[in-house]
Amino acid sequence: MLLKRWLVGDPLKSTQAAHQRLSKTIALAIFSSNAISSVAYATEEILLVLILAGTAAVAWSIPISLAILFLIVVLTISYRQIIYEYPEGGGAYVVARNNFGEQPALIGAAALMIDYVLTVAVSVAAGIAALTSAVPSLFEYRVALGLAAIIFIVVINLRGVRESGTFFAFPTYFGVGIIGVMVGIGSVQAFFGQSASVSPGHQTAVEELTLFLILRTFAAGCTAVTGMEVVSNSVKAFRRPESQNASVTMIWMSLILASLFMGITFLAYHGGIQPKTDETVISQLARLTFGTGALYYAFQSGTMLLLILAANSAFAAFPQLASILARDGYMPRQMATFGDRLVFSNGIIVLGIIACFLLIVFHGDTHALIPLYAIGVFISFTLSQSGMVRQWLSKKGPHWRAKLIVNGAGAVTTGIATIIIATTKFTHGAWIVFVLIFILVLMFRSIRSHYKAVTEQIALTRDHRPPLPRRNIVVIPINGVNQAVIRAVDYARSRPGEIQAVMVDVDTESTARIQIQWAQWGCGVRLSVLPCPYRSVLSSFLDYVEELLKKEPDTWVTVVIPEVLPAHWWQGILHNQRALLLKTALLFKERVILTDVPFHLKR
Amino acid sequence: MLLKRWLVGDPLKSTQAAHQRLSKTIALAIFSSNAISSVAYATEEILLVLILAGTAAVAWSIPISLAILFLIVVLTISYRQIIYEYPEGGGAYVVARNNFGEQPALIGAAALMIDYVLTVAVSVAAGIAALTSAVPSLFEYRVALGLAAIIFIVVINLRGVRESGTFFAFPTYFGVGIIGVMVGIGSVQAFFGQSASVSPGHQTAVEELTLFLILRTFAAGCTAVTGMEVVSNSVKAFRRPESQNASVTMIWMSLILASLFMGITFLAYHGGIQPKTDETVISQLARLTFGTGALYYAFQSGTMLLLILAANSAFAAFPQLASILARDGYMPRQMATFGDRLVFSNGIIVLGIIACFLLIVFHGDTHALIPLYAIGVFISFTLSQSGMVRQWLSKKGPHWRAKLIVNGAGAVTTGIATIIIATTKFTHGAWIVFVLIFILVLMFRSIRSHYKAVTEQIALTRDHRPPLPRRNIVVIPINGVNQAVIRAVDYARSRPGEIQAVMVDVDTESTARIQIQWAQWGCGVRLSVLPCPYRSVLSSFLDYVEELLKKEPDTWVTVVIPEVLPAHWWQGILHNQRALLLKTALLFKERVILTDVPFHLKR
Repeated sequence: MLLKRWLVGDPLKSTQAAHQRLSKTIALAIFSSNAISSVAYATEEILLVLILAGTAAVAWSIPISLAILFLIVVLTISYRQIIYEYPEGGGAYVVARNNFGEQPALIGAAALMIDYVLTVAVSVAAGIAALTSAVPSLFEYRVALGLAAIIFIVVINLRGVRESGTFFAFPTYFGVGIIGVMVGIGSVQAFFGQSASVSPGHQTAVEELTLFLILRTFAAGCTAVTGMEVVSNSVKAFRRPESQNASVTMIWMSLILASLFMGITFLAYHGGIQPKTDETVISQLARLTFGTGALYYAFQSGTMLLLILAANSAFAAFPQLASILARDGYMPRQMATFGDRLVFSNGIIVLGIIACFLLIVFHGDTHALIPLYAIGVFISFTLSQSGMVRQWLSKKGPHWRAKLIVNGAGAVTTGIATIIIATTKFTHGAWIVFVLIFILVLMFRSIRSHYKAVTEQIALTRDHRPPLPRRNIVVIPINGVNQAVIRAVDYARSRPGEIQAVMVDVDTESTARIQIQWAQWGCGVRLSVLPCPYRSVLSSFLDYVEELLKKEPDTWVTVVIPEVLPAHWWQGILHNQRALLLKTALLFKERVILTDVPFHLKR
Repeated sequence: MLLKRWLVGDPLKSTQAAHQRLSKTIALAIFSSNAISSVAYATEEILLVLILAGTAAVAWSIPISLAILFLIVVLTISYRQIIYEYPEGGGAYVVARNNFGEQPALIGAAALMIDYVLTVAVSVAAGIAALTSAVPSLFEYRVALGLAAIIFIVVINLRGVRESGTFFAFPTYFGVGIIGVMVGIGSVQAFFGQSASVSPGHQTAVEELTLFLILRTFAAGCTAVTGMEVVSNSVKAFRRPESQNASVTMIWMSLILASLFMGITFLAYHGGIQPKTDETVISQLARLTFGTGALYYAFQSGTMLLLILAANSAFAAFPQLASILARDGYMPRQMATFGDRLVFSNGIIVLGIIACFLLIVFHGDTHALIPLYAIGVFISFTLSQSGMVRQWLSKKGPHWRAKLIVNGAGAVTTGIATIIIATTKFTHGAWIVFVLIFILVLMFRSIRSHYKAVTEQIALTRDHRPPLPRRNIVVIPINGVNQAVIRAVDYARSRPGEIQAVMVDVDTESTARIQIQWAQWGCGVRLSVLPCPYRSVLSSFLDYVEELLKKEPDTWVTVVIPEVLPAHWWQGILHNQRALLLKTALLFKERVILTDVPFHLKR
């Protein structure tokens, strides 16, 4: 507990919640790092596909990134409308629930959840790749480094939203700033024609430059826009007026994202950079622009920080979504409530564990994770936008036609992109996402139906008070005659009911001794001795209780356990854990009531 | 549970215990594999030290092994007397306890325990080394293979003594037999002068052949006699007449051990074999004798089986010793009793875990473990023998003078050997053993003093029945009005005492609703609403109970918990684990009695 307090701080009062709201400057750092950090790998993913068609095909990176720029613009405009319509946040799940009903909403929720988990895994993996591009000797420790990064983010997030925002704002701005500087200097160099350029090794084509390959490139580039939905899902975290602040933040985010992405793609093309296995594209670009000096290393560390902090935005969004789902009964109830630092602690911990698992399974390799990425986000984009279309059609309201057109354009664009991504990436791993969505939706539904069943079963019918069994037999298991046992017997004797003590005959000699002592101390309570052929005291006693329940179908059995408790927890190992085992076993028997009469040792 | 039954078999009745006794043939396999298997590494350890003084020094292996042969003879004769005097087994601990008192007995017990653990680790490591000498590609998996071997032995042992004996007898005899064949063929070849011999690479001396080096060689060779005490510690496991059968078994064991050890040392010297890093000495010897054919591989697998099964003898002896110590109050009580297969299950599991730990820490390397080995066994040899000397001096009895001389010779011989081993190996790791013995003895004593304190605290004084608190307040924590809660309230109302229901105000809306429902269903029981500023229902309630206890110093507080239990254990994750947390927290409060009223869901 002390460790927990030191790590996550003292508990916060519920009334302090408003104080935890975020300013635009900090919100931009928290919620945009996810989207902006994708510039660190999106261009590389585009080039990796195009290079399959040979060096000449690389020129296609420019039109393809223009298409992605178009996507950014459409998403920004259409998401601003969602921000104003859904100030409580929740994104695709809430929009789809309100406009399409349960099934599409759950698909949206599943898609979003998968994407948040992948955001953490991909961003941390890419961040560590930035580190190992600069310091190759750390490459073999990349999984351990990634795990350490995740654990660090988890702890910071358990401290609370505003603290993690303040903590992470500086490195985020540092990362964005230094990428901006690189793009700026690179552009000036390019403009004045004094730019260096690598002498590109000619790459022979292994595939033809088909339409499919171009679409696959587009799909790969779509990773650039992942994370754009985060602001709209987190409107509640902003200071008042929430929607307006969120909207301004969203526009800033899109401007930064668009200019950095276009700049990097252009410079990479201009500099003739080709993807390498051992160094990232933007690391090459930074080396070309800055030389391999102090600025290069600052750039790499900035990129690394930005990427690792991108993971942080998922830690704000995932628990929020899990909590909304839990309140609707689709997730375990523990996810619904704030922890003692006003964050959804359980959601944060679950996300951290799954992301660590992914990182280990995929050996911390960004490229292995990328094919799974983006598909979930685009499904949720499409659901949100088409949900809004439906909303305008049914609800109408002022300027509904204009708004319909905006969200309609968003729905069509993201819908087409979703189909392209699903088709071109399907065999490369996107199928896993569909399977997972299916499993998650099943899980949501069965959790909900379990809770419904529980509610039905424990509900009280209008005027019927279910009667208790008429009789109550009190059974006290003993293993000797001592103060703990006597206390339990006296407690049992102070209430009504037939009482019997029961002991298991492990050793005839001590059984005889106890029987003699019982005659003096037992106060006339009958002592039954149970045979114990298999030396398991526990099962002998359980069999006895089972018999009793069978013989008397209209009877409670109250088991009064005399429990000797050590003064220090570490002494627990020196005591047979029989009381605990007994309690656990009895808990699952019907008509058995457990009473624990403790005897606390002083030393 | 089903898995457990399938692995270890159905429980056995106590009356079946006699049936589990061992015949001489099987006892020889179980108890002698420990001692005999040492021939697989003892010669190598001798050569490893001698080679430091150059190739010529290797001739010293012959006189040194004659000294060890002398040790074997002395130990055999003197241990036979212990077998007859102590038919209940227990070895150094029992002998020292009866003749020297507590402190030396505990030192003996600690030394023996350490040695049993090391036996498992060393034997398994050496067994895997036999395997990897023959199949070098498995070398990198040696730790995993070792762990698998230990787990396998643990499971077999949990099935019971006789079953493991039967199971292990064949491979043990196979291993002993094939080593015997190798020694036989090798000797014939040597006698008729047609033996091959490796052309020894000349090894330059790095140390002088000092007396210290010779003594160190002797200490290294002493690993050959480790395990000789096992038979005398396990007399109880033999069929009647126990002592006589054990004594015959001991003699057979010594004969086999002595002839194989002397044979291997002689052949290794005659064949000019020098220790190598990548192949064991007896693997080289077998290759020389058999050639690298089917017989060689049979030899290696036989050695491997013999060594791995040597670990098995420790699994019979360690739990036996732990159980004796536990009955004397020096070990946790759980170690004292038979499990449901008539073996000391807890001791077997503990030994397995510690051995696995050692194997991992020392990377499964025999040579790294050897310096720790033997010292424990020789301390226990010396304690046993000198304890017997003391016994003959005080008890006398028929032929006591002759018996005194035998055990006296044993005490002096093993005492000198102990001093040699301790001195020469001290800096190589033997110091760890002394530290561990110190820690273990401390642990034994503090366990004993804890149990004594417990007994004193719970003991009843002659005529004084400690009174119970006069008043009893029943507190029922509720979080809604439903069948589970109503059942708990009705149960509480059926016994005397003031009753109050308590709920924590997490959400004002639902609090108001519950208060209205309570008016209908609460039967007039007062409902207190607790504030919950930190959203921790648990701590709010605990604070309330704490207050109550402070306010009413002469009162019991009985907390009646309405617990909803899922129909299937895996549904448990969908329920807040509040009942469990609450019970755990309340258990450690004085004057709090816990009553659990379960409500079992049907689906």
